Amino acid sequence: MAPVGSMLWRSLRVWQVYGANTEVGKTVLTTTLCKAARNRYQDEVTAYLKPVSTGPLDEADSHHIQKYAQGVSHATLHQYDLAISPHAAARGKLQLVPSDKGLLESIYAHAAKTAANSPGWLFIETAGGVHSPGPSGASQAELYKPLRCPVVLIGDPKLGGISLTISAFESLKIRGYDVEAILLFREDQYNNWEYLTEYFKEHYNIPVYTVSPPPARDAVSAETDAQAMKEYYKEASRLPVMHDILKHLDSKHKGRITRLESMATTAHEKIWYPFTQQKLVTPASITAIDSANADFFQTLVPQGSRDDSKSSTPLLQPSFDGSASWWTQGLGHGSTSLTLAAAYAAGRYGHVMFAEAVHEPALALAETLLGGMANPRLTRVFYSDDGSTGVEVAVKMGLRAARVRYGWPAGDKLGIIGLKGGYHGDTIGAMDCAEPSAFNEKVEWYEGKGMWFDTPSIKCVNGKWVIEIPEELRGHMKNDGFDFDTLSDVFDIEQREKQGSHEAYEKYIEETLQSHLAKGRKFGAVLLEPVVLGAGGMILADPLFQRALVNVVRRSADLFGVARDDVSSSDKLGWTGLPIIFDEVFTGLYRLGRFSASSFLNIDADISVHAKLLTGGLVPLCTTLASESILRAFESDDKTDALLHGHSYTAHPVGCNVATESLRQMQAMERNGDWDWAKSGGWSTSTAKDVVADDCRVWSIWSSGFIDWLSRHPAVAGAWALGSVLAIHLHAPDGSGYTSNVAASLRDALRTNASDRDEAPWNIHSRVLGNVLYCMGGQRSTGQDIRELENVLRRALDKQ
Amino acid sequence: MAPVGSMLWRSLRVWQVYGANTEVGKTVLTTTLCKAARNRYQDEVTAYLKPVSTGPLDEADSHHIQKYAQGVSHATLHQYDLAISPHAAARGKLQLVPSDKGLLESIYAHAAKTAANSPGWLFIETAGGVHSPGPSGASQAELYKPLRCPVVLIGDPKLGGISLTISAFESLKIRGYDVEAILLFREDQYNNWEYLTEYFKEHYNIPVYTVSPPPARDAVSAETDAQAMKEYYKEASRLPVMHDILKHLDSKHKGRITRLESMATTAHEKIWYPFTQQKLVTPASITAIDSANADFFQTLVPQGSRDDSKSSTPLLQPSFDGSASWWTQGLGHGSTSLTLAAAYAAGRYGHVMFAEAVHEPALALAETLLGGMANPRLTRVFYSDDGSTGVEVAVKMGLRAARVRYGWPAGDKLGIIGLKGGYHGDTIGAMDCAEPSAFNEKVEWYEGKGMWFDTPSIKCVNGKWVIEIPEELRGHMKNDGFDFDTLSDVFDIEQREKQGSHEAYEKYIEETLQSHLAKGRKFGAVLLEPVVLGAGGMILADPLFQRALVNVVRRSADLFGVARDDVSSSDKLGWTGLPIIFDEVFTGLYRLGRFSASSFLNIDADISVHAKLLTGGLVPLCTTLASESILRAFESDDKTDALLHGHSYTAHPVGCNVATESLRQMQAMERNGDWDWAKSGGWSTSTAKDVVADDCRVWSIWSSGFIDWLSRHPAVAGAWALGSVLAIHLHAPDGSGYTSNVAASLRDALRTNASDRDEAPWNIHSRVLGNVLYCMGGQRSTGQDIRELENVLRRALDKQ
Repeated sequence: MAPVGSMLWRSLRVWQVYGANTEVGKTVLTTTLCKAARNRYQDEVTAYLKPVSTGPLDEADSHHIQKYAQGVSHATLHQYDLAISPHAAARGKLQLVPSDKGLLESIYAHAAKTAANSPGWLFIETAGGVHSPGPSGASQAELYKPLRCPVVLIGDPKLGGISLTISAFESLKIRGYDVEAILLFREDQYNNWEYLTEYFKEHYNIPVYTVSPPPARDAVSAETDAQAMKEYYKEASRLPVMHDILKHLDSKHKGRITRLESMATTAHEKIWYPFTQQKLVTPASITAIDSANADFFQTLVPQGSRDDSKSSTPLLQPSFDGSASWWTQGLGHGSTSLTLAAAYAAGRYGHVMFAEAVHEPALALAETLLGGMANPRLTRVFYSDDGSTGVEVAVKMGLRAARVRYGWPAGDKLGIIGLKGGYHGDTIGAMDCAEPSAFNEKVEWYEGKGMWFDTPSIKCVNGKWVIEIPEELRGHMKNDGFDFDTLSDVFDIEQREKQGSHEAYEKYIEETLQSHLAKGRKFGAVLLEPVVLGAGGMILADPLFQRALVNVVRRSADLFGVARDDVSSSDKLGWTGLPIIFDEVFTGLYRLGRFSASSFLNIDADISVHAKLLTGGLVPLCTTLASESILRAFESDDKTDALLHGHSYTAHPVGCNVATESLRQMQAMERNGDWDWAKSGGWSTSTAKDVVADDCRVWSIWSSGFIDWLSRHPAVAGAWALGSVLAIHLHAPDGSGYTSNVAASLRDALRTNASDRDEAPWNIHSRVLGNVLYCMGGQRSTGQDIRELENVLRRALDKQ
Repeated sequence: MAPVGSMLWRSLRVWQVYGANTEVGKTVLTTTLCKAARNRYQDEVTAYLKPVSTGPLDEADSHHIQKYAQGVSHATLHQYDLAISPHAAARGKLQLVPSDKGLLESIYAHAAKTAANSPGWLFIETAGGVHSPGPSGASQAELYKPLRCPVVLIGDPKLGGISLTISAFESLKIRGYDVEAILLFREDQYNNWEYLTEYFKEHYNIPVYTVSPPPARDAVSAETDAQAMKEYYKEASRLPVMHDILKHLDSKHKGRITRLESMATTAHEKIWYPFTQQKLVTPASITAIDSANADFFQTLVPQGSRDDSKSSTPLLQPSFDGSASWWTQGLGHGSTSLTLAAAYAAGRYGHVMFAEAVHEPALALAETLLGGMANPRLTRVFYSDDGSTGVEVAVKMGLRAARVRYGWPAGDKLGIIGLKGGYHGDTIGAMDCAEPSAFNEKVEWYEGKGMWFDTPSIKCVNGKWVIEIPEELRGHMKNDGFDFDTLSDVFDIEQREKQGSHEAYEKYIEETLQSHLAKGRKFGAVLLEPVVLGAGGMILADPLFQRALVNVVRRSADLFGVARDDVSSSDKLGWTGLPIIFDEVFTGLYRLGRFSASSFLNIDADISVHAKLLTGGLVPLCTTLASESILRAFESDDKTDALLHGHSYTAHPVGCNVATESLRQMQAMERNGDWDWAKSGGWSTSTAKDVVADDCRVWSIWSSGFIDWLSRHPAVAGAWALGSVLAIHLHAPDGSGYTSNVAASLRDALRTNASDRDEAPWNIHSRVLGNVLYCMGGQRSTGQDIRELENVLRRALDKQ
C-alpha cells in the first residue's frame, strides 16, 4: 500500500507555492524565488516542480523557469494543453488523469530524488488558486494536504485582492497548512501589501514580502519582452527582500526539524502521560506526531531507524493509527467536513450556557441520537464530557431510580451488577463499577461497588468460533463450551434461544443473584458494555449471556425490592427489576458496524452512554440517554432532588455540531452500502445463511479468511473481528491479563518498517492490552489498506 | 449601551449578499433578485441597502437599483467617492468614518424601519469580497457577523473562480454565517457553475443558481447600454430560476423562525438539563440561543415580552452572558482567532493518540502553562477533560504521594483537608472532596472524605471591607471580625503577617488538625480553591487564612505520619507535610485578574488544576500540573503503580491549540496594560497605597464605587468584586444557601428588558447560587459595557 508520507528531509527545503488567485504572478514570483536561491546558495541544488500544468507547452511555467532561471532544475509531472482548470483540461483524457494518490506519489518520488542531491531548495508551484481543482477534480488544498509542505502564499495585489488573500490563507489554515510567508507584488494603486502586512503581522505574526511587478508586456515584440523580463529577474532576484525571505524560509525549515527532534525529550521532561508507567518511558519510546491524515499519523522516523548519512533519508513516515487513537477515530484524521462543522459552531457560538438554555447543535444532536438508537424507551439526552463522566451520570440516574422506586433510605449501599472484565472509566465513581483489577486495585479511593458475573466469551480458535464457558458456570451447562462455524451463527440469538441455549445461562444468573441478595446486598442497576468488553482486555462476550442477564433482571422485580409505585401496565417503556445501563462508549456508533451495539442483543436499555466515535475523533463529548421512567425519579418540587451533575462545557456547540455531522455521515454510509466490500470479506458465507436474516449477519472490515489464518497460528490463542475491531489474543506464557508483556513484542515489531522493498518507510502504531494486540480501522478505511495491513500482520506474526 | 442585535423579523426576509470577489456581478445579480422579488411579491416591500459604497455617486449601486428596479426602495448609508476599498476611501475622512458598532447600528435601524413596513424583502449588498475591509479597516465578514444575516453568496464565474467561491464560502462558514444559496453567472467557457453546483450539493447541500450574464457593454453609447440592461433585467428577473431562489430563501427564512420558536418545546421534551430540577422547567423558562458574540448571546425574545401585532417587533435580542456561560468565557464568544486555532489543529491532526506520543499543541500548552504559573515546584502537565476529572487526577496524585511517603497500607482511608463551601466537581471522587451539602447529600455514592475548615470570608458591607470570622474560630481571635478601607489592604498579606494577624489562624488550624488526628484519622492532601470558593456560593475567602492553612500543614510533617524517604534538604521543591492541591479551575487564568490565583496567597502549590478559561470558552480541556516530587511516588518497575487515568481524548490537539492561543492573548493583554481602565476604576486608591506595591493591588472590571453603592443597599448583605467577577450577597429571609430563592427574583428582573427608552430590547442572562447573584465579564469586556451593566443592576436592585 505504501501510503504517501509527508515531505520532510533535513537538507532539502521543500516549499509549496499557493496563489490567492490566478494571475497574481505566482510563476513570476516563484521564478524570482528560484533564481534568488540559485544565486545565494550556489553550492546547492535549486529545483522547481510544477505537478500539474495547463496551457501550451511553450507557455508552461517550467519552460519559463528554464528560460529565466538558469541552473534551476525544473520539471512538470502532468501537462494538459488547454489553458483551463486542470480538472477540465484533463476531462476526456482518462488515461492521462492521475489519481490523487498517484499524483502525490509522483511528487513524493520527485522530491525524494531531489533530496538525494541536496542540500538545496525545492519549490513546488500549484495551479490557480488554493481550491482550484487538480486533475481528479479534488481541490488542490485538499489533495496536497497529506504532503504537509510549508507554504509561501502569493498574495493578490489587485482590487479585491485583500479579501482573496485572507480567504485563501484561511482555507489553507483550517486544513492544517503552515503558511510561513506571504509574497506579493508591490502595487501602489490599491496598496494591498500595506493592509496585508499589518493584518498578517497582527493576527498571525506572518511576514509579508513585496517585490515590484515586472514591466508591462510589449504587444509588439516578444523578444523585447523576453529581454525586459530577463532584466527584471536579474534585478528582482538580487533584492534584499529576496535575501530576507530565503533566510526566513531557511530558518523556518530548520526550526521545524529542531523542534520535531527535540519534542520527545521535552515531552519526557514536562508531560505526565496517561495510563503510563513514566519510569519505563524514554525519549526514544515517545512517538513525535507531526500531523495525521485519514487512518495515518505522520511520525518522526526514530533516529535508530534512519540512515542519516544519506540526504534522501526522510524524517517523517506514515504510521497506521492502529489504536484509532484510543478508539476515537472513525471518519479519519483531519477530516475537513468535521473541521468545518467545528469551526462553524465556534464562529457562531463559541461555548454557550446550556442549563435551561438550548442551541441548535445540542438539540440537533439529541434528535439524531434518539432517532438513530431507535430504542423507544430512550427519550432524554444528558450531556457530559467523556465516557467516564457519562457513566457516572448513568449510575447516578440508575441508582436514584431504583432507590426511589423501592423506597430505600438515602444511606443504603447500592451496588452495580456487571461483568468481570468490564471497565467504564477512570473517575472514581466509574472505577467503582468495575471489579477489582490491576487497573484500580492501587487507586486510593477505589472501592468496587457491586457484583460481577464471569461471562462466556467468544474467540475464533483453529478455524472454529468457540464460546468458552467460565468455570463457575460450567456446572450449570451440559457442555464445557460450544463451537460454531461462523460468527453470525453465534450472533443468531433467536435461533439459539429457540434451541434453549439461554436456559442454563438464566438459571445460573438467577441463582447467583439470589445468593447475593440473600446475604443482604442491595443492587441499584445493571451496567454492561454490550458485546465487547474493551479496556478489560478486548473480550467478545456471548450476546446470549448478556441478553439472559437483562431478561432475568427485568422479569424479577420482586427479587430486588418492593416497588412503591405501580409500574405494571401503565408504562410499557418503564424499567422493571433494575434500570439497565448500556455503556456503548466504545461499542456503539458503528464501531462494531451498527449504530447501536444493543441491537446485537436485541435489548432496549433504559440508559445508554455514548462517546468516543460520537464526535468522529475530534473533541471530547459524551451523551447519556435515558427514559422518562428514569427521569421521573428526579422530579420533585425540591431543587436538590435534581440530578446534580453538569460540567462547565456541557453540550458545547463545537462538540455537538461535530457529532451531528459525524453521525449524519456514518448513517449515510450505512444507507449507501459503503461497507459492502467489508461485508463480502468472507462474512456473508454463513452455514446458516438461509436462516440468518441479512441484517442479523455480523461482519468486519478484517476478512474472515484472515481471522481463520490467525486462529490457526501457533502464537495465537484465539482471535476475533467485528466491525472495525480486530483482537488477537496471544498465548501468554507469563500469565495473561493487563500485566502481561507478550503482545508488546508483536507491537514493537509492527513499529519497525512495514514497507516492502525500496518503498518509503511506514509502520503500524498499535496498542496492547496485556496479551491482546488489537488493531482498529475507521469507517472510511479502504479494503485495499486493510488487506495490506493483514499482510503486514501475517509477516510480523510469522517472524515472532 | 444598547448592544446591536441580530436581525430577525418575522415578516421581513433580510438577506445579506456577499461576493466571492469584486467584479463578479454582485450588483447586477442583487438588482435581479430585487426586481424578481418586486415582481413576485407585489403587495410587499422590496428594499435594497448598500451600507458602504465607494466610487462616483452616479455609478453607485443604489443608483443602479433606482434605474433598473423600479419600486424597490433603496438606500446607501455611507458613500465614498473613490473607487477603491472602503477603508482606503475613508482614509483621511475621519469625521465620516463610522465605527464598526455605529455602522451596525445604522444598518439595524434601517432594517427595523423597513420591518415596520413589511412583509417584504431586504437585500443588503456588501462591498467587494467577503474580507474586503469596511470603513474602519475591519473585514466585512468579521464586522457584520453580529447581525447574523443569512447569506446569498455571489460566485465567481471567471478563471480561478471555483477556488475563490469555495474560499469565500469557507471564510463565512467558519464565522458561523449561514450561506443558504449561491448565485452566479452561467459562463460557459470555464463552466465554474457546473463544478460548484456539484461541489456545494455534495458537501453542504446548498443549491447553486445560475443566470446568464448581462450583454457586454457597448463602448459607443451609454444609452444603448442602459436599454440593453433594462431588457436584460426584465428577462432575467422573470426567469424560473429567480422564482426558485426566492422560494428557497423564503422557505429558509420561515424555517429558521419555526425552528427557533419550537426549540424550547422540543428541548423540554428531549433534553435532561444539568443541575436543574426538570419539574420546574417549562418551555417558557428555556432560553433559545441563536448565536453569541463577544459577551452577548442573541436570544429569542420570549413570546410574552413581544408585541407580535407589530411587524417591527424583533425576534432576537442581545443578552449579556452574565454567567460567562458557567464561568468559561474570557475572550468573547465566537472569537475568530480561537476558531482558527481550533480549525487548524482539527485540520492538521484531528485527535491523535497521546499515551507515549507527543504533538505540538500539547507540548506548547504544557510549556506555556508551566511558564505562566512561574511556580518552580510545578514541572509536569497531565491532561484530562474537565475540572472534575482534573481534580480526581490531582487527588489520585496527592493521596498516592502521601501514602508512599508515609508507608501507609493500600486499604487505609485517607481524607482530604479542605474548606467548607469548597466544591470541586460532579464526579463522585470530586464530590467526595466537599463536605456534605445540598449538592451531594442525596447522591447515592457520595461519601464526604475529609475534614473541612470554616473560612473567614470577605465582603464589602456599608462601604467597609469586612472579614467575617466564623463562629468556631472566634474563640481564638481577639475580635469577631475586622474591617479594612480597601480590598487591597485585605490582600496585603505581607503587611498583615507583619502585624501578626495570621497567628490566631495558625493556632486554630493546628489545634483543629491535631484533634482530628488524635481520633486516628489520616489525611492525604490539602485541596483548596484559592481566594474564591465558586460553586459553593461565591465566597471570597481570606487569603491570609488559606495561606496559614498551607503553612501549618507544610511545616508539620510529623503531624501526619513518619516519612519513609528523606525529603529534608535534597529537594527544596518537594512537598512537606501533605501535598498541597490548588483547584484553580474557576479562579485561575485571569478570572481574578492574574495568571494564577495562587499569587494572592503567595504560595506555590504542589499540584494545580486548570480548566474553564483555559480554552477561552470553546471546548472542554483540563490540566493538572504537578511537581517531580509527586511524580516520583508513581515511579516503579511495575506498570500498575502508574497513575491509571487517561481519557480517550486526552490532550486533544483542538483543545490544546485553542488553549495556547487563548493564554497567549491573555498574557499579551496583561503585558500591554489592556486592563488599565479597570485598575483605575477606583481600585488603585488604597489607603495603604504607599505601602502596597503596585503588583499587590487587587482590582476588578466592576468599579469600586459600584461595590460601595451595592454594599450600602438595603437589599444587599454584602458584595465583592475581583477580576471579572461580581458577587452580590442578598439578604435571605428564607434562609441562605443553595436552596434559597431570594436572588432568583433579581435574576428574573434582569431578564426583562434592560434597554432605555425606545432602543431595541436587550437583557442580562445571569445565574444565582442561593442568595447570591453573580455577574461575570470577560477579558475583553469594555469599560463602557460594564458601567452600563452596573447602571442596569442599580435600577433592577432599586426596584426590588
